[in-house]
Amino acid sequence: MKATFEQLRDSVTSRNWHVLQAELSHMQEIDVAAFIESLPAELALLVFRALEKDVAAEIFANFSNDQQELLIGAITDQELQHLMKGLMIDDAVDMIGELPANLVNRILRHTSPKTRSLINQFLLYPEFSAGSIMTAEFVQLKKEMSVGQAIAHIRKVGENKETIYTCYVTTQNRMLEGIVSVRTLLLSSDDQILETLMDPDYISVTTTDDQEHVADLFRRYDLLSIPVTDHENRLVGIITVDDIIDVIEEENTEDFQKMGALIPSEKPYLKTGVFTLAKNRIVWLMVLLFSGM
Amino acid sequence: MKATFEQLRDSVTSRNWHVLQAELSHMQEIDVAAFIESLPAELALLVFRALEKDVAAEIFANFSNDQQELLIGAITDQELQHLMKGLMIDDAVDMIGELPANLVNRILRHTSPKTRSLINQFLLYPEFSAGSIMTAEFVQLKKEMSVGQAIAHIRKVGENKETIYTCYVTTQNRMLEGIVSVRTLLLSSDDQILETLMDPDYISVTTTDDQEHVADLFRRYDLLSIPVTDHENRLVGIITVDDIIDVIEEENTEDFQKMGALIPSEKPYLKTGVFTLAKNRIVWLMVLLFSGM
Repeated sequence: MKATFEQLRDSVTSRNWHVLQAELSHMQEIDVAAFIESLPAELALLVFRALEKDVAAEIFANFSNDQQELLIGAITDQELQHLMKGLMIDDAVDMIGELPANLVNRILRHTSPKTRSLINQFLLYPEFSAGSIMTAEFVQLKKEMSVGQAIAHIRKVGENKETIYTCYVTTQNRMLEGIVSVRTLLLSSDDQILETLMDPDYISVTTTDDQEHVADLFRRYDLLSIPVTDHENRLVGIITVDDIIDVIEEENTEDFQKMGALIPSEKPYLKTGVFTLAKNRIVWLMVLLFSGM
Repeated sequence: MKATFEQLRDSVTSRNWHVLQAELSHMQEIDVAAFIESLPAELALLVFRALEKDVAAEIFANFSNDQQELLIGAITDQELQHLMKGLMIDDAVDMIGELPANLVNRILRHTSPKTRSLINQFLLYPEFSAGSIMTAEFVQLKKEMSVGQAIAHIRKVGENKETIYTCYVTTQNRMLEGIVSVRTLLLSSDDQILETLMDPDYISVTTTDDQEHVADLFRRYDLLSIPVTDHENRLVGIITVDDIIDVIEEENTEDFQKMGALIPSEKPYLKTGVFTLAKNRIVWLMVLLFSGM
């Protein structure tokens, strides 16, 4: 980080937006989020609004639930709509599990039907299950594609995917047939057909598998991501390694607490996602199920 | 895994090589390694020799040091040469730190001068430092390249790189100027110039940084890999997320043992790399330094 939070705050209070934006553009998203969280509420809103549109959602996903609640309560419907479009499903679900009812209602009203239905589906998975930590943004390919076609497809749809480095070869009805890495694609010639390149012996988990089992697979097989299927082998999500590092951290914190015979603290050791999920999930699940939203 | 180790062993003892090879080709490398380790020494050698050449080195890297020692002692000079060519530098250094003198001498005699010099360099880094866990196989690009040229370059040189997903933009004398992901390249048009796409505000570590600090950066910034520079900002290696998961595991094991007031056990919780490095490193460092190999 080049500027300290104090220097950045000076730019905010003196409304020196050009200097501030230049500094923020050199910072990592999680550091920008930490800086905004360090500001009083009204300044936080000002700075959040000054962010470039395409990074705002990612920075938002890095906020604590309290900061998210503050901002959601303060932004316009149009800003909210834009924000929800930019959020990955897992981050949206994390957030909704923690917000008060009026805000969730407002969020769901400004979310596309497709996203609402995904949120609904994700709320259904049991706590600490693969389903509860997976995300829905992945690249699907067909086994008849050539490498050239596959790369062209990735270039077209990759923008909003959680990862493009592992792609999933599926049938028309979303049955997972194999996985293929971008590495394999790039190291093969353009006219090779995916069916001959994909790995049909992929490692996968089902939505109800425990997240600790998922973490073990990442450790043993050095994975970057893992596909999550339902019990009919339909691909429903993926889990990426950065989320698994959080799980490993949580599991260790938990083991630690057990071993030290401490009372599990309210706030876990590191920033969580999964730990904070459970409480309100069931309420929203009911609302969504019966409201037919 | 489709076949159990017992079924696989039956194929070995009945010399049913076709069936065995078919089964092994469906298995992950670490599982093949575990299977071979479960065999008596002479059968292990037989099966290792039957492996496809391009996966043999990777399976070898997954063996315990004892199994590596057994195999190195049993294979021919030519096989050894081939094996060393296939091993990543960090795996070779891991192994050399544990082998008896006669085997190391033999290995170094059958290793290219370039690899020997890298091994030498890597043995110099202090235990638990970024330098001691990094690897030297990464993709370097130049900032004048277009996206099209960069992708073509990656396709040409990517085969033996630890990762191709993050590429490093360097000057003629290996100064790190920025990093660019394959994702960014694929999502940009072919005629864009790397200088306008690369991230000059990358996160990096130096060779002497502690591995725990490196792990913290991976956790905070959700990295897939991190560049390691020397104190003149020359790029000397990279660390990938799979190796960092091992570090996190080790650190947790260590903390655990401290907390439980246990005597640190000889064999750490999970398979290690770094823990086993220290002992013989200094001996080989001396040999290599003064022998001018």
